[in-house]
Amino acid sequence: MNPQKRLRDYGITIGRLETGSKNAITDVEGVTVGHVTLSNGDIQTGVTAILPHHGNIFKEKVIAASHVINGFGKTMGTIQINELGTIETPILLTNTLSIGTAADALIEYMLQQNEEIGRSTGTVNPIVCECNDMFLNDVRARNITKEHVFEAIANASSEFEEGSVGAGRGMLCYSLKGGIGTSSRIMTMEHGTYIMGVFALTNFGILSDLTIAGNPIGQELKEHLLQAKKDKDQGSVIIIVATDLPVSERQLSRIIKRAVSGLSRTGSIITTGSGEIVIGFSTATKIPHEKPTSSVPVSTIHEEDIDLAFRAVGEATEEAVLNSLITATHVVGREGNERPALKDLIDKYAISLK
Amino acid sequence: MNPQKRLRDYGITIGRLETGSKNAITDVEGVTVGHVTLSNGDIQTGVTAILPHHGNIFKEKVIAASHVINGFGKTMGTIQINELGTIETPILLTNTLSIGTAADALIEYMLQQNEEIGRSTGTVNPIVCECNDMFLNDVRARNITKEHVFEAIANASSEFEEGSVGAGRGMLCYSLKGGIGTSSRIMTMEHGTYIMGVFALTNFGILSDLTIAGNPIGQELKEHLLQAKKDKDQGSVIIIVATDLPVSERQLSRIIKRAVSGLSRTGSIITTGSGEIVIGFSTATKIPHEKPTSSVPVSTIHEEDIDLAFRAVGEATEEAVLNSLITATHVVGREGNERPALKDLIDKYAISLK
Amino acid sequence: MNPQKRLRDYGITIGRLETGSKNAITDVEGVTVGHVTLSNGDIQTGVTAILPHHGNIFKEKVIAASHVINGFGKTMGTIQINELGTIETPILLTNTLSIGTAADALIEYMLQQNEEIGRSTGTVNPIVCECNDMFLNDVRARNITKEHVFEAIANASSEFEEGSVGAGRGMLCYSLKGGIGTSSRIMTMEHGTYIMGVFALTNFGILSDLTIAGNPIGQELKEHLLQAKKDKDQGSVIIIVATDLPVSERQLSRIIKRAVSGLSRTGSIITTGSGEIVIGFSTATKIPHEKPTSSVPVSTIHEEDIDLAFRAVGEATEEAVLNSLITATHVVGREGNERPALKDLIDKYAISLK
Amino acid sequence: MNPQKRLRDYGITIGRLETGSKNAITDVEGVTVGHVTLSNGDIQTGVTAILPHHGNIFKEKVIAASHVINGFGKTMGTIQINELGTIETPILLTNTLSIGTAADALIEYMLQQNEEIGRSTGTVNPIVCECNDMFLNDVRARNITKEHVFEAIANASSEFEEGSVGAGRGMLCYSLKGGIGTSSRIMTMEHGTYIMGVFALTNFGILSDLTIAGNPIGQELKEHLLQAKKDKDQGSVIIIVATDLPVSERQLSRIIKRAVSGLSRTGSIITTGSGEIVIGFSTATKIPHEKPTSSVPVSTIHEEDIDLAFRAVGEATEEAVLNSLITATHVVGREGNERPALKDLIDKYAISLK
Repeated sequence: MNPQKRLRDYGITIGRLETGSKNAITDVEGVTVGHVTLSNGDIQTGVTAILPHHGNIFKEKVIAASHVINGFGKTMGTIQINELGTIETPILLTNTLSIGTAADALIEYMLQQNEEIGRSTGTVNPIVCECNDMFLNDVRARNITKEHVFEAIANASSEFEEGSVGAGRGMLCYSLKGGIGTSSRIMTMEHGTYIMGVFALTNFGILSDLTIAGNPIGQELKEHLLQAKKDKDQGSVIIIVATDLPVSERQLSRIIKRAVSGLSRTGSIITTGSGEIVIGFSTATKIPHEKPTSSVPVSTIHEEDIDLAFRAVGEATEEAVLNSLITATHVVGREGNERPALKDLIDKYAISLK
Repeated sequence: MNPQKRLRDYGITIGRLETGSKNAITDVEGVTVGHVTLSNGDIQTGVTAILPHHGNIFKEKVIAASHVINGFGKTMGTIQINELGTIETPILLTNTLSIGTAADALIEYMLQQNEEIGRSTGTVNPIVCECNDMFLNDVRARNITKEHVFEAIANASSEFEEGSVGAGRGMLCYSLKGGIGTSSRIMTMEHGTYIMGVFALTNFGILSDLTIAGNPIGQELKEHLLQAKKDKDQGSVIIIVATDLPVSERQLSRIIKRAVSGLSRTGSIITTGSGEIVIGFSTATKIPHEKPTSSVPVSTIHEEDIDLAFRAVGEATEEAVLNSLITATHVVGREGNERPALKDLIDKYAISLK
Repeated sequence: MNPQKRLRDYGITIGRLETGSKNAITDVEGVTVGHVTLSNGDIQTGVTAILPHHGNIFKEKVIAASHVINGFGKTMGTIQINELGTIETPILLTNTLSIGTAADALIEYMLQQNEEIGRSTGTVNPIVCECNDMFLNDVRARNITKEHVFEAIANASSEFEEGSVGAGRGMLCYSLKGGIGTSSRIMTMEHGTYIMGVFALTNFGILSDLTIAGNPIGQELKEHLLQAKKDKDQGSVIIIVATDLPVSERQLSRIIKRAVSGLSRTGSIITTGSGEIVIGFSTATKIPHEKPTSSVPVSTIHEEDIDLAFRAVGEATEEAVLNSLITATHVVGREGNERPALKDLIDKYAISLK
Repeated sequence: MNPQKRLRDYGITIGRLETGSKNAITDVEGVTVGHVTLSNGDIQTGVTAILPHHGNIFKEKVIAASHVINGFGKTMGTIQINELGTIETPILLTNTLSIGTAADALIEYMLQQNEEIGRSTGTVNPIVCECNDMFLNDVRARNITKEHVFEAIANASSEFEEGSVGAGRGMLCYSLKGGIGTSSRIMTMEHGTYIMGVFALTNFGILSDLTIAGNPIGQELKEHLLQAKKDKDQGSVIIIVATDLPVSERQLSRIIKRAVSGLSRTGSIITTGSGEIVIGFSTATKIPHEKPTSSVPVSTIHEEDIDLAFRAVGEATEEAVLNSLITATHVVGREGNERPALKDLIDKYAISLK
């Protein structure tokens, strides 16, 4: 997708399914991702926006589901996703203390796009996800502005960077530099070929637990890194799952619950302080905001086909997390705090990923 | 539906929607109900079976949802309903300590109907609901046999009795004789006319709370009934909702949650000891057991249409509960314990239902 | 509590339990409520803050639970309440499109109170609830500022107004003017006497459904009110439950689920467009932010005692909703839209509440 | 614990925490396990009973929680566990089609132990878990009798066998012979030393996914085994978690959710047909059936201590699953169907577990 060296460029393959052409969430037709990155001394943070399709999302909602792996998090909008089974805005990701600003900006964006909101129709449900980047970023300063949000949405493209960018700028993963990662899988069924795309904002994990494709590399790394001694996880991970598979919201809910299998295989024990939230959507069916005169047909897979989606989401989650680690760059931030990049460490200490 | 005098025969109307022709759950095309009643001294109990359609339910499953209003209950089968969104057996209702026997009988019935279960396909998920009839019935004796279950299923018909019959034989409601009640509502939408049917097995409530169409009749009744002094609720209520409305399992789940509004209007405070479970199904879409080569289309209503279903289920639940009370007959059971029938009391004490 | 004429001043009693001395959520020792009201032409909105106790809420959290009656709402903070069972900030209520600003202000307030947030400890979970006041208020203008939030918190007192004030300024209830209402109940158990306090922000319901203490007054009112013809509910209701009863978060969760029985008795069918959220907290146990060296003792009631709390919360919710209606004043707002006050209507049309 | 050769006897260590002295669920003081094994031609099944403590479980309930990883299962009793947060019977495990008989037997056992059930107090909530052993066992014949259940309970001991015994007799795991496995971990906190015990009934997984301590041994094994070609998972896994850690039911619920991390590390993708249920209990607090005059104190850990429990349950689950595999013996069952034992395969093909 981008010129960054990704996990597969190191010869590591996760799972057995084929990836999409970009090996990214944007392999799902219509999905785009945009970043704004702030990097200036104590300010190491950003915003990322994910758009489900190119049209008016409020008027053509997508079937959606959310799942809480661990609820020490402040993600906004899941109550309505769970009730109505749809998403009607872009999905924003930013730092924890900027969710108010991000929500306000997303509301403003939606009002601009839809003059009827708050007049002839009801309100809008903004989806804002967050992780806590306080180690590298002066999170108390809340440097994200509404303009950053608008810019992130405007930047959305099917090509996007991974690593220390956007909302991932200040994030840590397994005590190393984390951030943004993505991956995808192809699912071939009798009635069609579909894509499962996963996007991860990684900010979780304890170094000694890190495992790459079965290799407990974290234990080896820990011996080299003094700073990791106070190895406490106060992070989070946000997983966004996109697919063009025809599914009901119940089926989608089942699928996104399997993201945890990928996280677990990277070594996570799912610590208490880590807000781990999954939001998924399917672009296969658009649910109109305005009521049609007829009923609404929803195409769904037969449950016997769903194991392929379960495998796909687990594999793509595992690889998205690892891509966030291997593409991340070294960042020095608040009060000189810094976190090393995995790619630098394996060079420096001649550690094999395999 | 049957020659019993029902709530509307006393001039009481609940809500504003029209009822179906039978004012019963069996107004939903294909739904049938069968009872077996045991009444002999200390034995005052029974079994009721509800069949979603006339075909092979295992091979043509119906979309389903369950909802726990209060979980002090032992209803079996809801884990799989919640996961897969379908029902694949008749629904059984009986007394609490007979659920093991009822489940075993239902499994046996399903094995007889489907030779491939446990051989070329997997297992089957029996749905068994219960209330505790220990006051009138010697529940410890567990008098229900497998034959009773087979008989209740065989008895299933679109015409069925209410009151002190079937699983309702030994039940109490608002400290009076309770049991079986049903009601239905017609829902007219742009794309069709549909039925919401509700079936209730009532065994809950405190006499002084009983309210009929806004009339706090329970307080008046309590003054006449000494035995109701130790007015503690150890009961339960099972609500079965059937509809032919085209809905997803998420929509059905939203609909059946509204049963509580009907219960509340009869005066219930939803006590801790009362297992209050709702199970709903829609006959509009049959989900095949065997995977087809294509995807499975599911017709759903637009969410803007759902308020009519919410009103229908609340009204029909309220009326089903009141029908169970007003059709129930006086029963003398275990150790001479007895509960009066509402219809006898209003005659005896010249109490107006209005 | 305040000089406003409340439901009981009209001779209407809800339920059978005694009220606390103020008949308000602030009967729970330490709980305070503050309003800021904006009323100027098209601007008819506000903010209300509820503080669980006088101390540092972040450092001494209170046991909490949340419950979604209907999830067409944007309430923030419930994911973490559900996971950790505590509240660590004041609870804010405002209009739907101002939740971003309110969240940002609440975060700022918490940062000011707690210098360690985002430095030596993690982040903070702001609780912001909302209803949509678009009919009377220019909700698209998002007139709420951070200063309004700080002011609402500063205004918090054990005495507070009901009706068309604070977050309730622009709200409708049963197509009449709604807003803020409260009520409380005393619970006497063997081991102590406790208070159940309920606070409601009402913005839901269809006029013809309105029922006061069993009296279907809404039908009578509807005949007098032409404007109510397009009687569609796009509202919401937020219920805040406070108690000093010693409970676990599971028990509290059970208790607050019973708020729906009170709502139902006022006539609600719980429409799809109504975000109906309950948040409850108990002041009986403070959970320290910092880990002590010992385990944390939590005093709980035995489950056999909980029915009294169920009755209390249902009664107090019903009365809080009705208090919001009867204390509300006539408001003219956006583009001349207006909603009448119940108290004016019953005078004008000589309607009896009983 | 028993003379069987277990995973650690092959030099494999899972995780970093110390095991309890038996490395079994019965390291938790008072917990016992009993099996009955049926092995005769087409009959390859059994019953296993787990008792939380030596006393009267109905009168002294233990704090409990349940978690559904995947709900294609028929486990009974979880509705009430979730509502009341307690277990009041032994936990039974057997084959899927015998749950009716098992429930009936457990009810009978409880009635014998407690004469007041169904007379002066209410009913009892039997906990019955199941997996489908149809490949090796004639599950349609339902050979389990009530006597088998009584015998399994009577056999309960702190010493018990693993592998192809009890409910595990006919189970498959990763297409090999599965069954019963257990493991435990020691948790040292400032206020005490505690045990996390895990018991697994394994019947899930696809051979090529099997991973032991990071070693993808399943792929190697698959090359040797023709019969595994039709590698479809129709299984299940039941995980029982016992601990003496002082926890609330909310904390316990959080803990048992982490079992999935252990399952995932053995290679599971959590297939649709696999009923994966976790039930946990803590022996630290006994909840009396009869209401005391005072409130009930519950000792809980501070949330900051819980990560140790999360690590413990993940590690112990992973090791319990692997113990079930490595202790299982070759079984020939229904119609000559058979499944090889892992221990035989690694010998035969000279495969290293490491």
